Amino acid sequence: MGPSRAEDEAILRRLRIFLSHVGGCNSDLTNEGQLFREATSGRDSQPGSLSIDVLTEIMTGSGRADREKIFRFFEGRPDLQTPVEIGKDAHRELTYKQLIALVRECGVHPMQLLVNDPARYFTVMEAVGFIDISLGIKMGVQFSLWGGSVVNLGTEKHKEIFFDGSNVQGIETTATFDKESDEFVVLTPNEGATKWWIGNAAVHGKFATVFAKLIIPSPSGDSDMGVHAFIVPIRSMADHSVLPGVEIRDCGYKVGLNGVDNGALRFHSVRIPRDNLLNRFGDLSRDGKYTSTLPTINKRFAATLGELVGGRVGLAYGSVGILKASVTIATRYSLLRRQFGPPDQPEISILDYQSQQQKLMPMLASAYAFHFATAYLMDRYSEMKKTHEDAVVADVHALSAGLKAYITSYTAKALSTCRESCGGHGYAAVNRFGSLRNDHDIFQTFEGDNTVLLQQVAADLLKQYRAKFKGAPLAVTWNYLRESMGTYLSQTNPVVTHRDEKMHLRDPRFQLDAFQFRTARLLHTVALRLRKHSKRLGAFGAWNRCLNHLLTLAESHIESVILAKFNEAVKRCQDPDARKLLKLLRDLYALDRIWHDVGTFRNQDYVAPNKAKAIHKQMEILCAEVRQVAGPLVDAFGIPDSLLRAPIGLQSGQYSEYTHYVGFSD
Amino acid sequence: MGPSRAEDEAILRRLRIFLSHVGGCNSDLTNEGQLFREATSGRDSQPGSLSIDVLTEIMTGSGRADREKIFRFFEGRPDLQTPVEIGKDAHRELTYKQLIALVRECGVHPMQLLVNDPARYFTVMEAVGFIDISLGIKMGVQFSLWGGSVVNLGTEKHKEIFFDGSNVQGIETTATFDKESDEFVVLTPNEGATKWWIGNAAVHGKFATVFAKLIIPSPSGDSDMGVHAFIVPIRSMADHSVLPGVEIRDCGYKVGLNGVDNGALRFHSVRIPRDNLLNRFGDLSRDGKYTSTLPTINKRFAATLGELVGGRVGLAYGSVGILKASVTIATRYSLLRRQFGPPDQPEISILDYQSQQQKLMPMLASAYAFHFATAYLMDRYSEMKKTHEDAVVADVHALSAGLKAYITSYTAKALSTCRESCGGHGYAAVNRFGSLRNDHDIFQTFEGDNTVLLQQVAADLLKQYRAKFKGAPLAVTWNYLRESMGTYLSQTNPVVTHRDEKMHLRDPRFQLDAFQFRTARLLHTVALRLRKHSKRLGAFGAWNRCLNHLLTLAESHIESVILAKFNEAVKRCQDPDARKLLKLLRDLYALDRIWHDVGTFRNQDYVAPNKAKAIHKQMEILCAEVRQVAGPLVDAFGIPDSLLRAPIGLQSGQYSEYTHYVGFSD
Repeated sequence: MGPSRAEDEAILRRLRIFLSHVGGCNSDLTNEGQLFREATSGRDSQPGSLSIDVLTEIMTGSGRADREKIFRFFEGRPDLQTPVEIGKDAHRELTYKQLIALVRECGVHPMQLLVNDPARYFTVMEAVGFIDISLGIKMGVQFSLWGGSVVNLGTEKHKEIFFDGSNVQGIETTATFDKESDEFVVLTPNEGATKWWIGNAAVHGKFATVFAKLIIPSPSGDSDMGVHAFIVPIRSMADHSVLPGVEIRDCGYKVGLNGVDNGALRFHSVRIPRDNLLNRFGDLSRDGKYTSTLPTINKRFAATLGELVGGRVGLAYGSVGILKASVTIATRYSLLRRQFGPPDQPEISILDYQSQQQKLMPMLASAYAFHFATAYLMDRYSEMKKTHEDAVVADVHALSAGLKAYITSYTAKALSTCRESCGGHGYAAVNRFGSLRNDHDIFQTFEGDNTVLLQQVAADLLKQYRAKFKGAPLAVTWNYLRESMGTYLSQTNPVVTHRDEKMHLRDPRFQLDAFQFRTARLLHTVALRLRKHSKRLGAFGAWNRCLNHLLTLAESHIESVILAKFNEAVKRCQDPDARKLLKLLRDLYALDRIWHDVGTFRNQDYVAPNKAKAIHKQMEILCAEVRQVAGPLVDAFGIPDSLLRAPIGLQSGQYSEYTHYVGFSD
Repeated sequence: MGPSRAEDEAILRRLRIFLSHVGGCNSDLTNEGQLFREATSGRDSQPGSLSIDVLTEIMTGSGRADREKIFRFFEGRPDLQTPVEIGKDAHRELTYKQLIALVRECGVHPMQLLVNDPARYFTVMEAVGFIDISLGIKMGVQFSLWGGSVVNLGTEKHKEIFFDGSNVQGIETTATFDKESDEFVVLTPNEGATKWWIGNAAVHGKFATVFAKLIIPSPSGDSDMGVHAFIVPIRSMADHSVLPGVEIRDCGYKVGLNGVDNGALRFHSVRIPRDNLLNRFGDLSRDGKYTSTLPTINKRFAATLGELVGGRVGLAYGSVGILKASVTIATRYSLLRRQFGPPDQPEISILDYQSQQQKLMPMLASAYAFHFATAYLMDRYSEMKKTHEDAVVADVHALSAGLKAYITSYTAKALSTCRESCGGHGYAAVNRFGSLRNDHDIFQTFEGDNTVLLQQVAADLLKQYRAKFKGAPLAVTWNYLRESMGTYLSQTNPVVTHRDEKMHLRDPRFQLDAFQFRTARLLHTVALRLRKHSKRLGAFGAWNRCLNHLLTLAESHIESVILAKFNEAVKRCQDPDARKLLKLLRDLYALDRIWHDVGTFRNQDYVAPNKAKAIHKQMEILCAEVRQVAGPLVDAFGIPDSLLRAPIGLQSGQYSEYTHYVGFSD
């Protein structure tokens, strides 16, 4: 490593000399310190501890009992704590032990929660992720994916028999009915159909849920009934050996999540009983007659995959938990670490630097914003599992796809920014950013690649758009489109486009209207472009030609939903001080996002140049205001030191913790 | 992991059904395939192999012999290859062995190169980074930092004695002269002065270059002569034990670069001979008389630290090498991997998706752009070491600070994007993105934190700006400011702001003018703001109030320099086909950057709305054009398969390599 600190000091010394001549003005250096203090006065003013308690209750309330139970259990079990450095094989065994202990000793029953109270299940998943993200994912693979597939796609007979194994899927794989033996023959037809990245498959899994095309042979040719789920035993119940016809390879060392054992699978004509078909959406009788309540292959496929949407809900919520942990570490370190400052004054906290504020404060606001959006998603998901109403199902599908994609992409970038903002100490493995980033990275890819999921959101919006013009009812969360479409179709108001005073910029009506205007505008223009291009390129070519536009539309829509949910949370909050804090965060979230995309707003003349400038200025002011209360705001996330672990991110005594870790005695 | 591929397919199936109704137009589905083929016709057209040879020569030419020698040596030594999974301690030993073998067996002499031909030294450093980034950094610590400090800060007597050890720095540390014994007493006065992250200190180092304040005691009080460099032995030459008074702690497991053993150091009144002062810029006689050619503490400090600028040059150049490797892997995988496509057509390469092109093609263009900029920097650095001319020194300082900060930040983000663009397979450790990202991450922090370095660039620009208005000559690379300042001070031309035809947008004069206009505008406005704020806040407060503005200014300036150097490279290229390719990449680089910051250009009315739209469209077209030649363009980077190693990124046979790695037999 190079002489960072020395070089930084050298540069800043030179800067200081240079600054004394800046702008040619003879600034009174003797008064400088005093003026600086005035400019940052009140930077240690803190909100009442009561309002922070209220925020903590809001941020952790519903799942607090489960969280506490899990946190206390693991605090008492240092033998189950993942060490800073651990090899792949040891990590796999440890994660397995952690999961067993969670169920058998801590008494958490994820399967029951998943079935009876999904919101509690997701809270547990987030809490467990604080122990080790590998544990959260292994739990998800075991219960949400494997258990969920059996519960949601099977019927009573399956629920009684199976509750241990893995989850497997794929499309080219076939399950051909053999009437003679009353069995299915499961076949991987070629190398490309190899099932990659199957969680729990490399070491621990005994059963797999395999998605395969159900084929019914007949003298006149085979009938393909589409993709169904089958339970396939992959290892012996007696000695755990791999069963005949099953080929399992270890996917090996990964960028992160090495506590989860992923395998690649092929099936060489493996025979399973007919009863192993998960038959909720389609069944086969002893004599080979196929029956289903759903008329087409596509409808059955959609229903089958649709039941697995819970995984996305869990990832979205889990990603917010990781964001909270990371922002907590970076913010606390930035408050503690002092560097440079005005001449002859004590060094200032690096969180007093505008650049550091701009890195971390919008991220802190986003963590709050995402919390409310995913809490809403969990509620909707629970409702869906109870009512099975079509409108709710459609809403949960689009929402979970959009929030999962948007939030995991944001968190992935945020984790890198947090590491950078903590300099060299952020690079010590013990301070967690490396493992958090490496473990979280794949959240962007699994349970649906983010780029693909955003296309689903865009397609749903276009469907709504077309439906609107046919007069059909819109899904509840998209009601705003109806209203904002009116805003857009009317001309933008030149008085409003120029308004740039603080009151207006911090008005939730302006903020939400801006978000919705943008979405409506993007939707309207992409619909026109698709129509134009599809004449020449066909539907697929047109879609691809407009792909960037479509992805922007989807992100814009999701940001609107997040802001709307944040607004509701502000309104719900009864404590006036806590509400003030939430409003502050909401304003920062909104203006940061508007500034982030100011080119679009300027191009549509939705904001005039003076207003664009005012938005930027207001955003910098909001960053400085949030900085004053940043400590309590991260405390309100309620992540105990024992789980956060990063010595630079603990609530107290960071530096001595850290030097102690490195081994200095004093 | 979840059912990614299955979910993606489910979504895209639904999309396809939806697409068949899109826009209400009855697109002729039977013709769709043909139309799509037309739209993408020529996508397999390739440039002549001759022009690619020319490009390869341009991209690898000057250092080819050194590269080839190193590549061949390590290809023949699989025992020296870093395995995919390796623990910290084993990694440290292996990196040490690699370095010893590089010098003793491969016959590369970094110290001689550093002194006699710095450009060759940096080429070697890049090549060695392809073996293992830890090796590149360990070599840098050993030769550039430790060796460089002795060569550049010491005098003949030091060069003869020392060529093995470590590099250490810091500011609070003191070296107090003891006249009695003719020694310095080196002291770490408090915990905060602990020297962290010292490369080679935890295990292998024997000597350290320590930056400490030189204190001369006298009856009337101590005199502080400012920071000087001292050679301090830290381990015994006889048995490698830590010497008395030296306290060394292991910084432990890091996010990456675990092949480098970083330590934290404290000195408890360690005595060293007076001769161990590196005395090029200041010396002390036997009787305690201090002499220096430089009059002030600040000038001596700047001269001392200034000699270490080579580290930044190496990091900037090395970062481009890592970007090239990463883009090569992601591009080759994206060409190979096929997914979905128009109905009843073969699946298309994922690099045919607009979204994938937009992720990777500007990155490919940037790798070329950065190559030319850093090649120029190396030349200037070599010139500086020969001539020691003030103007060249100032230029190299600003350029190396700016390019190091800008390029390493870009590469860090690009590495994450590359991983994401390769989905699940990008997450397999064997495919390299994880270790490349983790190893490279700290490039943003060491040898000067990027946020601090950009401030140095901004300060230098402001100095130039003030000098200009005093009529003083400008440094050579900033001549453009003089010209563009004229452009800016005159009104923008309404005809030009509306021009949106391809010819104009691909005209290097328009592109460079846009970059320089932005820099000039940012410089002018920040100078005014600093003057205004410093009256009330003092120089430091004003600087902090404008910090984001200043960082934007610095980045904008660096982008101008990069574009200017790219333009020169295009002009230099004699082969017409190769030049066409370089022009294409240059256009994409320029328009991508303009679009990236289009809000600023719109706010200044430098581009009208129709022009903003046209720039975006042109950028998408350029991405599609570069995609046609993406394979050969990454081949031209000349990274051999044996070093690239990632099975998904090899020139041929990726999938079978990969399945072979996982262990499937066929």
